[in-house]
Amino acid sequence: MTEPLRVGVLGATGLAGQQVLAALERHPWFSVTAVGASHASAGKTLGDALREPSGGSRWFAEGRLDPSLLALRCLDDEALLAQPIDLLFSAVSKEVALQWEPRFADRVPVISTASAFRNEPDVPILIPGINDAHAEALHDQRRQRGWHGFIAPIPNCTTTGLAVSLKPLHDTFGVRTVVMTSLQAVSGAGRQDGVLALDVIDNVIPFIPDEEEKVERETKKILGHWQEPASFTVSCTCTRVNVRDGHLESVFVGTERPVDAAAASAAMDGFGVDGLRGLPSAPDRLLRVDPDPFRPQPRRDRDAGGGMTVTVGRLRDEPVLKGVKYVVLSHNTKLGAGKGAVLLAEWLTREGYTGRRPTRAAL
Amino acid sequence: MTEPLRVGVLGATGLAGQQVLAALERHPWFSVTAVGASHASAGKTLGDALREPSGGSRWFAEGRLDPSLLALRCLDDEALLAQPIDLLFSAVSKEVALQWEPRFADRVPVISTASAFRNEPDVPILIPGINDAHAEALHDQRRQRGWHGFIAPIPNCTTTGLAVSLKPLHDTFGVRTVVMTSLQAVSGAGRQDGVLALDVIDNVIPFIPDEEEKVERETKKILGHWQEPASFTVSCTCTRVNVRDGHLESVFVGTERPVDAAAASAAMDGFGVDGLRGLPSAPDRLLRVDPDPFRPQPRRDRDAGGGMTVTVGRLRDEPVLKGVKYVVLSHNTKLGAGKGAVLLAEWLTREGYTGRRPTRAAL
Amino acid sequence: MTEPLRVGVLGATGLAGQQVLAALERHPWFSVTAVGASHASAGKTLGDALREPSGGSRWFAEGRLDPSLLALRCLDDEALLAQPIDLLFSAVSKEVALQWEPRFADRVPVISTASAFRNEPDVPILIPGINDAHAEALHDQRRQRGWHGFIAPIPNCTTTGLAVSLKPLHDTFGVRTVVMTSLQAVSGAGRQDGVLALDVIDNVIPFIPDEEEKVERETKKILGHWQEPASFTVSCTCTRVNVRDGHLESVFVGTERPVDAAAASAAMDGFGVDGLRGLPSAPDRLLRVDPDPFRPQPRRDRDAGGGMTVTVGRLRDEPVLKGVKYVVLSHNTKLGAGKGAVLLAEWLTREGYTGRRPTRAAL
Amino acid sequence: MTEPLRVGVLGATGLAGQQVLAALERHPWFSVTAVGASHASAGKTLGDALREPSGGSRWFAEGRLDPSLLALRCLDDEALLAQPIDLLFSAVSKEVALQWEPRFADRVPVISTASAFRNEPDVPILIPGINDAHAEALHDQRRQRGWHGFIAPIPNCTTTGLAVSLKPLHDTFGVRTVVMTSLQAVSGAGRQDGVLALDVIDNVIPFIPDEEEKVERETKKILGHWQEPASFTVSCTCTRVNVRDGHLESVFVGTERPVDAAAASAAMDGFGVDGLRGLPSAPDRLLRVDPDPFRPQPRRDRDAGGGMTVTVGRLRDEPVLKGVKYVVLSHNTKLGAGKGAVLLAEWLTREGYTGRRPTRAAL
Repeated sequence: MTEPLRVGVLGATGLAGQQVLAALERHPWFSVTAVGASHASAGKTLGDALREPSGGSRWFAEGRLDPSLLALRCLDDEALLAQPIDLLFSAVSKEVALQWEPRFADRVPVISTASAFRNEPDVPILIPGINDAHAEALHDQRRQRGWHGFIAPIPNCTTTGLAVSLKPLHDTFGVRTVVMTSLQAVSGAGRQDGVLALDVIDNVIPFIPDEEEKVERETKKILGHWQEPASFTVSCTCTRVNVRDGHLESVFVGTERPVDAAAASAAMDGFGVDGLRGLPSAPDRLLRVDPDPFRPQPRRDRDAGGGMTVTVGRLRDEPVLKGVKYVVLSHNTKLGAGKGAVLLAEWLTREGYTGRRPTRAAL
Repeated sequence: MTEPLRVGVLGATGLAGQQVLAALERHPWFSVTAVGASHASAGKTLGDALREPSGGSRWFAEGRLDPSLLALRCLDDEALLAQPIDLLFSAVSKEVALQWEPRFADRVPVISTASAFRNEPDVPILIPGINDAHAEALHDQRRQRGWHGFIAPIPNCTTTGLAVSLKPLHDTFGVRTVVMTSLQAVSGAGRQDGVLALDVIDNVIPFIPDEEEKVERETKKILGHWQEPASFTVSCTCTRVNVRDGHLESVFVGTERPVDAAAASAAMDGFGVDGLRGLPSAPDRLLRVDPDPFRPQPRRDRDAGGGMTVTVGRLRDEPVLKGVKYVVLSHNTKLGAGKGAVLLAEWLTREGYTGRRPTRAAL
Repeated sequence: MTEPLRVGVLGATGLAGQQVLAALERHPWFSVTAVGASHASAGKTLGDALREPSGGSRWFAEGRLDPSLLALRCLDDEALLAQPIDLLFSAVSKEVALQWEPRFADRVPVISTASAFRNEPDVPILIPGINDAHAEALHDQRRQRGWHGFIAPIPNCTTTGLAVSLKPLHDTFGVRTVVMTSLQAVSGAGRQDGVLALDVIDNVIPFIPDEEEKVERETKKILGHWQEPASFTVSCTCTRVNVRDGHLESVFVGTERPVDAAAASAAMDGFGVDGLRGLPSAPDRLLRVDPDPFRPQPRRDRDAGGGMTVTVGRLRDEPVLKGVKYVVLSHNTKLGAGKGAVLLAEWLTREGYTGRRPTRAAL
Repeated sequence: MTEPLRVGVLGATGLAGQQVLAALERHPWFSVTAVGASHASAGKTLGDALREPSGGSRWFAEGRLDPSLLALRCLDDEALLAQPIDLLFSAVSKEVALQWEPRFADRVPVISTASAFRNEPDVPILIPGINDAHAEALHDQRRQRGWHGFIAPIPNCTTTGLAVSLKPLHDTFGVRTVVMTSLQAVSGAGRQDGVLALDVIDNVIPFIPDEEEKVERETKKILGHWQEPASFTVSCTCTRVNVRDGHLESVFVGTERPVDAAAASAAMDGFGVDGLRGLPSAPDRLLRVDPDPFRPQPRRDRDAGGGMTVTVGRLRDEPVLKGVKYVVLSHNTKLGAGKGAVLLAEWLTREGYTGRRPTRAAL
């Protein structure tokens, strides 16, 4: 690509926004040229906005942020809207997203980690390599809403690992039923309403408001045909455990056609995602099966493939639902949030959805 | 009872043994008169055996042990066998239990936390208030084996909460299928092969060897008729989380007859265990339903009823299995181990199984 | 006492306020008749104010709150001021305390967990049994400020354990220097700006803003003569560890007169607090020495004496400062907050400072 | 160097041994040609010895071990002794080290993580860049003991961070007194007698047997002249916290010559270790000062410099000891164990102590 796309980040100082920024550091295709933050931070440099009154740092993603980004001045949302950008990453709360994402989508493509528009009938929830065909709907969305851009949300971070692991099973054996219990990391709750250490030390919290409904609805939307959610039934219990990063899910699947652990393992391990090849944030493998019965473990496996590989383990026959059972792990703030949003932007860019397509050389 | 029964404790210095001793402190019916320990400890007082070379204490149960117990001299297994006792609590490993429990059962009733004999066809796995009728089998066991005593094991600590919570559902609606994912506390692994902090900090371990088979088999044995395990299917994934005490289980149940969350809640909350009334270690309620959607939590709820009450929460309709789903919490080292064994001994004593029955006044 | 004192609680729904309420349940001398809360909660019953929109409970202290308290209607601060009460517990932030405590003190005695007035020259920081003579200053405070009541703050929760453990050393050997490193529990930060699990899992945070200055200043004020802080030097580093409750402090003390571990142990273990006898919240011992080298541990020892006993361990000779070194543990939300405030109120009441003194019979 | 040195690893399957192996993967100078393990593992390939009966992996260091290493066959100690190697890494317990290290040292240089010989008068405890002059003593040791090789131990992992941070202070201002409280990670205890999760969840253990004596003695030996320990006094309290890796230490230092925080910071930050340049495992900086008051934190900073950089923070004036106080963090299983041992071997090799010196080209 001759010139990188100019990207803005809405909600840049929040946890998801920081993950987006971290995933965009030294990015070959995208250059962060504008960052939006709350009124309290507007006018400050990003570096200052990320510094506490006491002198501490509010940068919580891995590594240290690039000095060129730290020097960017934070804009309020209105001012960010006036910036010359080619693409927006939105990493704000549902409430802010409801108000601001359409205003930005009127001008540029919006890649969002927020849940605000995921249930709209003209909005696909995209995971590159999993439901690429749904991206076509962005053209209709753009046309019907009269926007120059569009809104393209990634799924809830708990949906991602489940949907990726179910995809080869659904393609090969037909998923009929899914029973899932999640053991979710605390970073999934972000910092604003973050999980207090007080509540989770020596403890499990067996409820995450709205989470189960999201997972059930989004999984069917992603794995179905466009406008026609998958017909399988999903039933979930979502819990919070004392883990920093990495959502582990215990999954029991019933299938339409006979399956056993060996066949499922072959389908999962052979699941190719050629469509991701060449994308800067894509892992070598989106899905892998670990034969060690003690794996995957959040701490030891969440960073597989740079946090972008989903790991399945403990694949066994499932007698109740007539299918297979397994555990699956995905990194909730990388694949499931910031870096996953960047991967989607990369894919949309290469497929020509963002208006400016990287030149062959860059690919 | 005019005089308390003389009880011995095999494996007194281990974690389960300590829990038994803690549950027997100032017990109105039972008096610990002999304790068995490994060769390394034999000859020492219990107090000395529980002291580390560095001067630290190896007493890990709650509270501090009674001085009279600390003065008891540890015996090796052979010497313990020669003691005049009325009842033995066995809290040893499977391997030791295989060798020694029959030798003790030849003389006295043996209440065991070990898994060694749970699968024998003439050995019932007993939870007072849940499958009292199975106790009859102890007479046959005694007769056929030519023993004066018998072996009466309690279930695996993960089975207990599941079985107690399923009991009223099975009685009222008929359980057809069970899908369960456990989030188990580290104390379940004891100290000998205990879970290292190294492995579980910021982590979940998605496999506990042999655990799933035990839960599946024992639950059906307990909730079935004697010699005829329940015909429902159970499928489990057992995981270890960074929690000290209290096993949480996410349960999905399919039933024979229609059920919804309200009906299941009524059945569970109304589940009476009159048969436990008057037993010193019995809780007011063996099972309770908490309507707070964020409960039960291991740290906040494990000690309900002195660690002897099982708490169910998040009771909801279950669309996949056609039944209900819920989470259930039980204290794995109290109800699920030492104190649960003592409760069983109390019940067997009152019902006349231990040969010496407490007098009416004591009841 | 013929009738209990009517007490109000300012900041009743916060973490410190809840600890105060928990300590006042079924209290023989005090009856909670009015509770203050934020504007958002004013008008609701305390029970409703402690319920989340999602149905969860915001009651985080141990046990379950008494139904009679749950039915109390929350008042805003102005309305609370108009209530007929005999005593106020203030458990609000420094900022709210600065504004409201004087207005209440104008009418009634105010026992406060806030730091707002601790540095005022006419305000003693009181720990019953440690610096009782300072209470006399309340009379001057009252007179000079023209109040009917007064403001009597308890110390910062990290100061408490240190001051209690230093007291017998100072009395007997004369403290000259103190070097202290704290390992503080997360509950010390409360819920409002609570420590996020995200930040403290597998981690230590080596800085707690303002904490070290508070400990250094308050310890000298408490252990000095009134208006004349102790002349020893205190140097602290305060850290936050992944522990729920219980502040552990590693203390190195230099003394004026020769001391060794045995003499220090005798002084500490013999430290009597006869003045606390008969107070409902007083422990049998305010200070105890544990000879087990692995103790005190936060989880195992914080609840000693109902959370009101300070435990010292690892007492050894100290070669650098010429004195002794030890670790000390105190419960930061019991002795160090709610229950400690109630103990102070009890002592002030018995000593006649609150205007209404319990009758001899009640004592 | 034309050919890499052939190295053996004694205790290869233990936690420290694994860290050594991980640090030797694809090493440009050293090639692991023989591994020793317990009798139980002898005869198995390293891959098999690291596999549990249940199929799980016992490889606990980061990453996955190189296939060429996995194929090495484990030898018992006697057989390892007969192998043609140029250098031995010993990562065994003190007891095993006492017996075997001299036998190996008779033949080849032994770099050891064990404490067995650290107190011998002819054995230097070496940290490259800190006390290089002590290495001369290896010649005397070799001569006096009649060995072809020598024993060169690295310090206790808690000593390392303290000694590195004190070095520039001692050089510039003269250290007079040190008071230190450590907050140590659980990995420091290894796996054999590893810290149980049971003991450290929601807890701190305020005692680590023998640790304080080691730190006090080793720090003075390292920072003194050879045969003449530094004359300053060190007083420590060592505690275990719920952190996986990374020892944090709260240090208070009194100095001979006046110092303040700024001067100390300049001395520390300017501390150059030119002597490490070119060594494959050396970090860019052995010591750095972080100005963020909330740092260093174990989880966020332990991997600085590949786990080989010591981080100091919270540098302040120290009023009691008349000097400075700070916190210091070092990675206990990297710099403090396996990778630190490899760094020492690299330095000794380049300096010509191991008999075969890498050629200039390789440097």
